[in-house]
Amino acid sequence: MVVELINTGSELMLGRLLNTHQQWLCRRLADLGYVVARQVAVADTRRAIETCVREALGRADLVLTTGGLGPTSDDLTRDVLAQLLGKKLREEPSVVAHIQQFFELRNRVMPDRARAQALVPEDAIVLPNPHGTAPGLAIEVRPNPFRAAGRPSWLVLLPGPPRELRPMFTDAVAPLLRRVLPPEGVFVCRTLRTTGLGESFVQEKIGGPLQPVVEAGLELGYCARPGQVDVRLAARGAEAETMVGEAEAIVRQQLGAQIFGMDDEELETLIIRVLTERQETLALAESCTGGCIANQLTNVPGASAVLLAGLVTYSNRAKERLLGVNGATLAQHGAVSAAVAREMAEGARRQTQAHYALSATGIAGPSGGTQAKPVGTVFIALAGPFDTVVEHNFNPYDRETFKQVTAQQALDLLRRTILVSK
Amino acid sequence: MVVELINTGSELMLGRLLNTHQQWLCRRLADLGYVVARQVAVADTRRAIETCVREALGRADLVLTTGGLGPTSDDLTRDVLAQLLGKKLREEPSVVAHIQQFFELRNRVMPDRARAQALVPEDAIVLPNPHGTAPGLAIEVRPNPFRAAGRPSWLVLLPGPPRELRPMFTDAVAPLLRRVLPPEGVFVCRTLRTTGLGESFVQEKIGGPLQPVVEAGLELGYCARPGQVDVRLAARGAEAETMVGEAEAIVRQQLGAQIFGMDDEELETLIIRVLTERQETLALAESCTGGCIANQLTNVPGASAVLLAGLVTYSNRAKERLLGVNGATLAQHGAVSAAVAREMAEGARRQTQAHYALSATGIAGPSGGTQAKPVGTVFIALAGPFDTVVEHNFNPYDRETFKQVTAQQALDLLRRTILVSK
Repeated sequence: MVVELINTGSELMLGRLLNTHQQWLCRRLADLGYVVARQVAVADTRRAIETCVREALGRADLVLTTGGLGPTSDDLTRDVLAQLLGKKLREEPSVVAHIQQFFELRNRVMPDRARAQALVPEDAIVLPNPHGTAPGLAIEVRPNPFRAAGRPSWLVLLPGPPRELRPMFTDAVAPLLRRVLPPEGVFVCRTLRTTGLGESFVQEKIGGPLQPVVEAGLELGYCARPGQVDVRLAARGAEAETMVGEAEAIVRQQLGAQIFGMDDEELETLIIRVLTERQETLALAESCTGGCIANQLTNVPGASAVLLAGLVTYSNRAKERLLGVNGATLAQHGAVSAAVAREMAEGARRQTQAHYALSATGIAGPSGGTQAKPVGTVFIALAGPFDTVVEHNFNPYDRETFKQVTAQQALDLLRRTILVSK
Repeated sequence: MVVELINTGSELMLGRLLNTHQQWLCRRLADLGYVVARQVAVADTRRAIETCVREALGRADLVLTTGGLGPTSDDLTRDVLAQLLGKKLREEPSVVAHIQQFFELRNRVMPDRARAQALVPEDAIVLPNPHGTAPGLAIEVRPNPFRAAGRPSWLVLLPGPPRELRPMFTDAVAPLLRRVLPPEGVFVCRTLRTTGLGESFVQEKIGGPLQPVVEAGLELGYCARPGQVDVRLAARGAEAETMVGEAEAIVRQQLGAQIFGMDDEELETLIIRVLTERQETLALAESCTGGCIANQLTNVPGASAVLLAGLVTYSNRAKERLLGVNGATLAQHGAVSAAVAREMAEGARRQTQAHYALSATGIAGPSGGTQAKPVGTVFIALAGPFDTVVEHNFNPYDRETFKQVTAQQALDLLRRTILVSK
């Protein structure tokens, strides 16, 4: 089954808006067993919309569009596509009533233009929009004049605002698709997330051992992000579960402890979950990461049960006053040193009485490097109930990537320690 | 001039990765005077990549691709396109040397696979990649077998990781395009960035007064982000500069102090710049923002000259111990209160002897809200040389957006104060 997605919007083409529909819809469709073969974005012009939809109907069993259903002058999708398919528009009374009620509920007068949203191409299925005024539309194009032998396609038109589109997809589109275009066979997709390894190293370790499974039909994919490489294993058909399971076992055998999670689990989510379960607490002493570790951890709901405090101590004076780092250690070894990383972590642990304290001190750049300690040098320490470990890494990246990679390494040092101490 | 963008990556089609390239590249291209007519995303398969690029070369003067240049088995773009264009691949010694050096610098052995990245189609221009191993490639397709009358096109291949792609675009692609495909006529684009106002409010204030300039040909665009609305003014042709200048004057008159910067200047960059010039310093006491403010400020190179320390004090105990917040104040008003925000800011200022200290305490959610203090409630305080001001805001968003909006409000409180005290 071929599925294509079309996002319309001039603001997308000018780069003024991030296209979050693409990921959201591709993800939801993949979970339902449909993989999107092509996604296209074009401006809100008659010609662009018509061309793209005509091309997609020539290839796909299912075409979804987003945007262009609203009341303003640049909302053209409904009109253009009714014309393309040679379908008349009729005013749907239930939609007029819904729009009127929508405005009444907000104590506003319904503008005349809003009524245009109740125009529905003949034979279209109306997809209700409880969060806005423009309904979605689903049309079976049968026979399909754009496809060989008139092979039919489904065309689904969704509104642009995410808070309208998302519930409409879940509540109306997903059940419709299951009924009219049931997915072909089983689709299994699993992602194993690794940290601390480069992309080519990961491939070298697992590429050979996975070769037989790939030849049997496994789709193998890699995705590299700062400090992290994801390995994606996917398969289709009756053997899918077995094949992905077999591949997973091989990857786990090869990469072992470097795999920190599955699918969408982030390192910080795992850490908050494990420490919450154990009723253990954490403190942070960040110099070069400048709050990046704290910010990541506090994105996780419930982080407050674990993170007692984070101290961002850029200056030597702050390291001494807030963390009790020894002035002599700073003078002898410099702020970027194993000795200072150790005293920072131990100081944060002492100050907060947390079970664990992580520290990071390094040179984020772009300036501040020396021959002995070039930009990218970093020391990470973890103080725990029994001892303190210090790691020396080199992350010669731009400033933001340096912070992210270092944060990832610090969180991974903690992960490896707490999983061993289980 | 027709420009098209192709993003390759199976993880995009499965919805495992957000496509940030599309916005970033469309934005940068628009700023240079090129508007992208079509953006396409497809999976990393030979057939999909070849089909899309062939189609795009049939329509466009400039085709940019992202992804598929790395060392792993799903990196196919270089191979597929060399074959499509009938160009042989040769190993480029300077790229081999760069890759070797890249691994040496990191004390890692260069895996054999990494060498594949040094293969370059004949006649291609190599775009250096200082942040990674795979170089970009620019190829003039002349004559172009896929286009009417063999009309030539430029094909530019960029690597997938954003931290490699972005500097490569700025440093190598933009100058190349200016030389080989100069944009048609003058294109002026200016963005005025506002904070603290809603999108419809901004539109209501400036939409009417700008109407005559829009009728004369000004392109007016809005882009709303958490805590921020950007107003984009663009024009093309001989009158472009005059038109944009006139529009800018109108917007400044209407929105005044709510405009914090132009084009790409971020609030945090402005603050670090102004405080550095004045040799003034800053401390932070963050509860609900959890390090988000510190993380944003420390993304700015040179932040260490300004930011003395940031204290992330989630727990009451940390607020008392690290900031000296009064236990009685906590008991009487609760941690989320104007009184505690004030004591947090004053405590951070006292502890660090900074000129200014910012604090934030609130309920990020999803849980923890009450009837009197629902999720989204936040108090922000700024302690300065003369007094302390406290603001009470309500940001009922998801957790990450709450943190970002609150951080933006806190930085804006500081901006308004330091610009007044100039």
